[in-house]
Amino acid sequence: MKKYGLHGNLKAQNGLGKELAAILLQASALVSTAKGCHLYLVSTDKQNPDTIWITEVWDSKEDHDSSLQLDGVGALISQAMPLLAGKPEKGLELEVLGGIPA
Amino acid sequence: MKKYGLHGNLKAQNGLGKELAAILLQASALVSTAKGCHLYLVSTDKQNPDTIWITEVWDSKEDHDSSLQLDGVGALISQAMPLLAGKPEKGLELEVLGGIPA
Repeated sequence: MKKYGLHGNLKAQNGLGKELAAILLQASALVSTAKGCHLYLVSTDKQNPDTIWITEVWDSKEDHDSSLQLDGVGALISQAMPLLAGKPEKGLELEVLGGIPA
Repeated sequence: MKKYGLHGNLKAQNGLGKELAAILLQASALVSTAKGCHLYLVSTDKQNPDTIWITEVWDSKEDHDSSLQLDGVGALISQAMPLLAGKPEKGLELEVLGGIPA
Protein backbone atom coordinates (compact mmCIF):
# COMPACT_ATOMS: atom_id res chain seq x y z
CA MET A 1 0.00 0.00 0.00
CA LYS A 2 1.18 3.49 -0.79
CA LYS A 3 2.17 5.74 2.06
CA TYR A 4 2.42 9.48 2.63
CA GLY A 5 5.94 10.88 2.75
CA LEU A 6 7.28 14.27 3.67
CA HIS A 7 10.86 15.47 3.30
CA GLY A 8 11.62 18.95 4.49
CA ASN A 9 14.14 21.02 6.36
CA LEU A 10 14.36 23.54 9.13
CA LYS A 11 17.16 26.09 9.13
CA ALA A 12 18.56 27.07 12.50
CA GLN A 13 20.22 30.36 13.17
CA ASN A 14 24.02 30.25 12.84
CA GLY A 15 25.54 27.72 15.21
CA LEU A 16 22.21 26.48 16.60
CA GLY A 17 21.81 23.40 14.37
CA LYS A 18 22.79 20.97 17.12
CA GLU A 19 20.32 22.47 19.55
CA LEU A 20 17.53 22.32 16.94
CA ALA A 21 18.44 18.73 16.06
CA ALA A 22 18.24 17.73 19.74
CA ILE A 23 14.67 19.06 19.93
CA LEU A 24 13.72 17.25 16.72
CA LEU A 25 15.17 14.00 18.06
CA GLN A 26 12.84 14.36 21.05
CA ALA A 27 9.98 14.90 18.60
CA SER A 28 11.08 11.78 16.71
CA ALA A 29 10.95 9.72 19.90
CA LEU A 30 7.45 11.01 20.69
CA VAL A 31 6.01 10.71 17.22
CA SER A 32 7.56 7.45 16.06
CA THR A 33 5.08 5.49 18.16
CA ALA A 34 2.08 7.50 16.94
CA LYS A 35 -0.69 5.93 14.90
CA GLY A 36 0.37 5.42 11.30
CA CYS A 37 4.00 6.55 11.68
CA HIS A 38 6.58 4.41 9.86
CA LEU A 39 9.56 6.74 9.83
CA TYR A 40 10.70 10.01 11.38
CA LEU A 41 14.35 10.50 10.43
CA VAL A 42 16.32 13.47 11.70
CA SER A 43 19.48 14.39 9.76
CA THR A 44 22.01 17.15 9.42
CA ASP A 45 22.82 18.50 5.97
CA LYS A 46 26.45 17.55 5.31
CA GLN A 47 26.97 20.88 3.50
CA ASN A 48 25.35 22.99 6.19
CA PRO A 49 25.22 21.78 9.80
CA ASP A 50 22.58 24.37 10.69
CA THR A 51 20.10 22.83 8.25
CA ILE A 52 18.21 19.88 9.73
CA TRP A 53 16.23 17.56 7.47
CA ILE A 54 13.21 15.56 8.59
CA THR A 55 12.03 12.60 6.52
CA GLU A 56 8.68 11.14 7.51
CA VAL A 57 6.59 8.22 6.28
CA TRP A 58 2.97 7.88 7.43
CA ASP A 59 0.01 5.72 6.48
CA SER A 60 -1.80 8.92 5.45
CA LYS A 61 -1.56 12.70 5.48
CA GLU A 62 -4.31 12.66 8.12
CA ASP A 63 -2.14 10.59 10.47
CA HIS A 64 0.70 13.06 9.94
CA ASP A 65 -1.54 16.05 10.63
CA SER A 66 -2.97 14.43 13.77
CA SER A 67 0.53 13.90 15.15
CA LEU A 68 0.94 17.66 15.51
CA GLN A 69 -1.74 17.48 18.24
CA LEU A 70 0.02 14.79 20.32
CA ASP A 71 0.89 15.56 23.92
CA GLY A 72 4.31 17.15 24.10
CA VAL A 73 4.63 18.00 20.41
CA GLY A 74 3.31 21.54 20.84
CA ALA A 75 5.85 22.19 23.60
CA LEU A 76 8.69 20.99 21.37
CA ILE A 77 7.50 23.19 18.51
CA SER A 78 7.51 26.15 20.91
CA GLN A 79 11.09 25.33 21.91
CA ALA A 80 12.22 25.01 18.30
CA MET A 81 10.64 28.15 16.85
CA PRO A 82 12.99 30.72 18.44
CA LEU A 83 16.02 28.82 17.08
CA LEU A 84 14.90 29.09 13.45
CA ALA A 85 16.34 31.44 10.86
CA GLY A 86 13.07 32.43 9.22
CA LYS A 87 9.77 30.74 8.59
CA PRO A 88 9.77 27.00 7.77
CA GLU A 89 9.12 26.20 4.09
CA LYS A 90 6.67 23.52 3.03
CA GLY A 91 8.39 20.16 2.55
CA LEU A 92 8.39 17.90 -0.48
CA GLU A 93 5.34 15.61 -0.48
CA LEU A 94 5.97 12.05 -1.61
CA GLU A 95 3.90 9.03 -2.45
CA VAL A 96 6.04 6.30 -0.94
CA LEU A 97 5.91 3.13 -3.01
CA GLY A 98 8.30 0.77 -1.28
CA GLY A 99 11.22 0.15 1.02
CA ILE A 100 9.03 1.15 3.97
CA PRO A 101 10.27 0.04 7.39
CA ALA A 102 7.96 -2.47 9.08
CA MET B 1 25.81 6.19 15.98
CA LYS B 2 25.52 8.54 13.05
CA LYS B 3 24.65 7.09 9.68
CA TYR B 4 25.17 8.11 6.08
CA GLY B 5 22.06 9.32 4.26
CA LEU B 6 21.39 10.14 0.66
CA HIS B 7 18.22 11.73 -0.74
CA GLY B 8 18.07 12.22 -4.47
CA ASN B 9 15.84 11.89 -7.49
CA LEU B 10 15.79 10.45 -10.96
CA LYS B 11 13.64 12.09 -13.62
CA ALA B 12 12.04 9.75 -16.12
CA GLN B 13 11.06 10.84 -19.59
CA ASN B 14 7.41 11.91 -19.88
CA GLY B 15 5.06 9.12 -18.85
CA LEU B 16 7.81 6.66 -17.86
CA GLY B 17 7.83 7.36 -14.13
CA LYS B 18 5.95 4.17 -13.24
CA GLU B 19 8.35 2.05 -15.27
CA LEU B 20 11.35 3.70 -13.65
CA ALA B 21 9.81 3.26 -10.18
CA ALA B 22 9.28 -0.46 -10.85
CA ILE B 23 12.99 -0.88 -11.61
CA LEU B 24 13.95 1.07 -8.49
CA LEU B 25 11.66 -1.09 -6.35
CA GLN B 26 13.57 -4.12 -7.65
CA ALA B 27 16.80 -2.35 -6.68
CA SER B 28 15.31 -1.65 -3.24
CA ALA B 29 14.54 -5.35 -2.75
CA LEU B 30 18.10 -6.30 -3.74
CA VAL B 31 19.90 -3.64 -1.79
CA SER B 32 17.86 -3.56 1.41
CA THR B 33 19.54 -6.76 2.60
CA ALA B 34 23.05 -5.52 1.74
CA LYS B 35 25.66 -4.93 4.42
CA GLY B 36 25.05 -1.66 6.22
CA CYS B 37 21.72 -0.79 4.56
CA HIS B 38 19.02 0.56 6.90
CA LEU B 39 16.65 2.17 4.43
CA TYR B 40 16.05 2.34 0.68
CA LEU B 41 12.76 4.16 0.15
CA VAL B 42 11.33 4.63 -3.33
CA SER B 43 8.75 7.40 -3.76
CA THR B 44 6.96 9.36 -6.43
CA ASP B 45 6.98 13.13 -6.27
CA LYS B 46 3.35 14.16 -5.64
CA GLN B 47 3.82 17.20 -7.89
CA ASN B 48 5.46 15.28 -10.73
CA PRO B 49 4.81 11.55 -11.18
CA ASP B 50 7.81 11.19 -13.50
CA THR B 51 10.21 12.22 -10.73
CA ILE B 52 11.19 9.33 -8.48
CA TRP B 53 12.90 10.00 -5.16
CA ILE B 54 15.22 7.56 -3.42
CA THR B 55 16.00 7.98 0.26
CA GLU B 56 18.79 5.78 1.61
CA VAL B 57 20.34 5.27 5.04
CA TRP B 58 23.61 3.32 5.36
CA ASP B 59 26.13 2.65 8.10
CA SER B 60 28.70 4.45 5.95
CA LYS B 61 29.29 5.98 2.53
CA GLU B 62 31.58 3.00 1.81
CA ASP B 63 28.70 0.56 2.35
CA HIS B 64 26.57 2.63 -0.03
CA ASP B 65 29.29 2.70 -2.67
CA SER B 66 29.89 -1.06 -2.38
CA SER B 67 26.20 -1.73 -2.99
CA LEU B 68 26.58 -0.49 -6.56
CA GLN B 69 28.74 -3.57 -7.19
CA LEU B 70 26.17 -6.10 -5.92
CA ASP B 71 25.00 -8.84 -8.28
CA GLY B 72 22.02 -7.62 -10.26
CA VAL B 73 22.41 -3.92 -9.48
CA GLY B 74 24.39 -3.20 -12.65
CA ALA B 75 21.68 -4.84 -14.75
CA LEU B 76 18.99 -2.70 -13.12
CA ILE B 77 21.04 0.46 -13.70
CA SER B 78 21.34 -0.51 -17.36
CA GLN B 79 17.56 -0.94 -17.56
CA ALA B 80 16.91 2.39 -15.89
CA MET B 81 19.34 4.59 -17.85
CA PRO B 82 17.39 4.71 -21.15
CA LEU B 83 14.23 5.80 -19.28
CA LEU B 84 15.88 8.91 -17.83
CA ALA B 85 15.36 12.46 -19.01
CA GLY B 86 18.96 13.60 -18.73
CA LYS B 87 21.87 12.79 -16.48
CA PRO B 88 21.16 12.04 -12.80
CA GLU B 89 22.13 14.85 -10.43
CA LYS B 90 24.07 14.24 -7.25
CA GLY B 91 21.75 13.70 -4.28
CA LEU B 92 21.67 15.50 -0.97
CA GLU B 93 24.12 13.94 1.50
CA LEU B 94 22.88 13.69 5.08
CA GLU B 95 24.34 12.81 8.43
CA VAL B 96 21.46 10.84 9.92
CA LEU B 97 21.18 11.42 13.66
CA GLY B 98 18.13 9.45 14.70
CA GLY B 99 14.85 7.78 13.88
CA ILE B 100 16.77 5.08 12.01
CA PRO B 101 14.85 1.86 11.35
CA ALA B 102 16.32 -1.13 13.21
